[in-house]
Amino acid sequence: MNLILLDDADFPSDCVAVVTGRRADHIRTVLKAEVGTRLRVGRLGGMLGEGTVTRVDEGAVELAVVLTRQPPPPLPVTLLLALPRPKVLRRVIQCVVTLGVKRIVLFGAFRVERSYWRTPWLTEPELREQIVLGLEQARDTVPPVITTHPLFKPFLEDEAPALTDGTRRLVADPDAVMPCPVGDIGPVSLVVGPEGGFTAYELSLLGDGGFEPVSLGRRIFRTEQVVPALLGRFLA
Amino acid sequence: MNLILLDDADFPSDCVAVVTGRRADHIRTVLKAEVGTRLRVGRLGGMLGEGTVTRVDEGAVELAVVLTRQPPPPLPVTLLLALPRPKVLRRVIQCVVTLGVKRIVLFGAFRVERSYWRTPWLTEPELREQIVLGLEQARDTVPPVITTHPLFKPFLEDEAPALTDGTRRLVADPDAVMPCPVGDIGPVSLVVGPEGGFTAYELSLLGDGGFEPVSLGRRIFRTEQVVPALLGRFLA
Repeated sequence: MNLILLDDADFPSDCVAVVTGRRADHIRTVLKAEVGTRLRVGRLGGMLGEGTVTRVDEGAVELAVVLTRQPPPPLPVTLLLALPRPKVLRRVIQCVVTLGVKRIVLFGAFRVERSYWRTPWLTEPELREQIVLGLEQARDTVPPVITTHPLFKPFLEDEAPALTDGTRRLVADPDAVMPCPVGDIGPVSLVVGPEGGFTAYELSLLGDGGFEPVSLGRRIFRTEQVVPALLGRFLA
Repeated sequence: MNLILLDDADFPSDCVAVVTGRRADHIRTVLKAEVGTRLRVGRLGGMLGEGTVTRVDEGAVELAVVLTRQPPPPLPVTLLLALPRPKVLRRVIQCVVTLGVKRIVLFGAFRVERSYWRTPWLTEPELREQIVLGLEQARDTVPPVITTHPLFKPFLEDEAPALTDGTRRLVADPDAVMPCPVGDIGPVSLVVGPEGGFTAYELSLLGDGGFEPVSLGRRIFRTEQVVPALLGRFLA
């Protein structure tokens, strides 16, 4: 836990926060904080700063909070990800939140098993847990917006244009000739397909939608490998 | 399994391979191969090609093998990685093998717990399993060389110079001013520290050793996130 992330419910008044549960345990047992210890804190959706411990109980820690700094800049990438297997989903969400993505679009495709949409990891409390873990890791406060779109064609034709408006549209494709761009290329929408790949039909629809195929070479990667490898190219 | 990886012991003669165990199960039950089915194969340390199924038994599959293509080019990166927690180690080894790294140097540092060196995941058969999984995923045949160096200072002063000779030496450091380079910059040696970071003394020794500090921004990443994010910058 690189940051104690506070949300509105933790603030009985403007400058005082009281945390319980996992965060209180971490402050007491890992950080071994006492009254007077200063901790890195951030307010969900807001600023970063310092919390000075003013009280330590068995189940709760009270902090005097001063927030002075902006969170790190977001990564200007909209990630459009074919819904991965549930186990992979959890790790990937946490990873892309840590990397700074603020817009995650989960969609269905021919090689996305329908059962994946029924996983409990897609429910709001489970997603929220992965988001919080990802933000704490990165010392960030701004959660991403996550949307789900189970049907590929309606998603791509009716919703993707607005979701990716004003961005450079890329689709990761091991058969593409063009290497995925690197460096600061402005806002990007990056499509990553299912582990078995897109069908030829899906790739042609993506092409019609203005998504340029780009590659990281001939190797085939797992979702949890290719996502950070691609996003790493855009990190400043 | 994107590739059936064969080793010398699988070849009773030059052009015939017999596989058993996990690979035979995969060929029979996942690929549902019959006599005449053609499969992607590769020979460990050698070429890629095609294997035509000539016999399917309960426990073994026989293939007529023709090898015609070179494996994908290696990633010209020597990865020097502070030994991570055992669970992370497994995943990271598999990931960097998939990404094409051929030289992995595991070293100790102040914030590497000594107990990590006793993990069974560092033994030859366990490492070999992760290497094989990584190569199968990438459709590659060339295993990496992995060396271990528990003591930081002797490693850095006596061994690292030869291991990284002729390469650009970089060390990942969230406090660095220079962004990690991107694109094809020739052979690179990339140092990634432990999750708690290097000590100031270790960083100064790395500086003396010619390793330039480079960053991916202010965010703090987990080892299994930062390694693919950094390596992704060098993929062609």
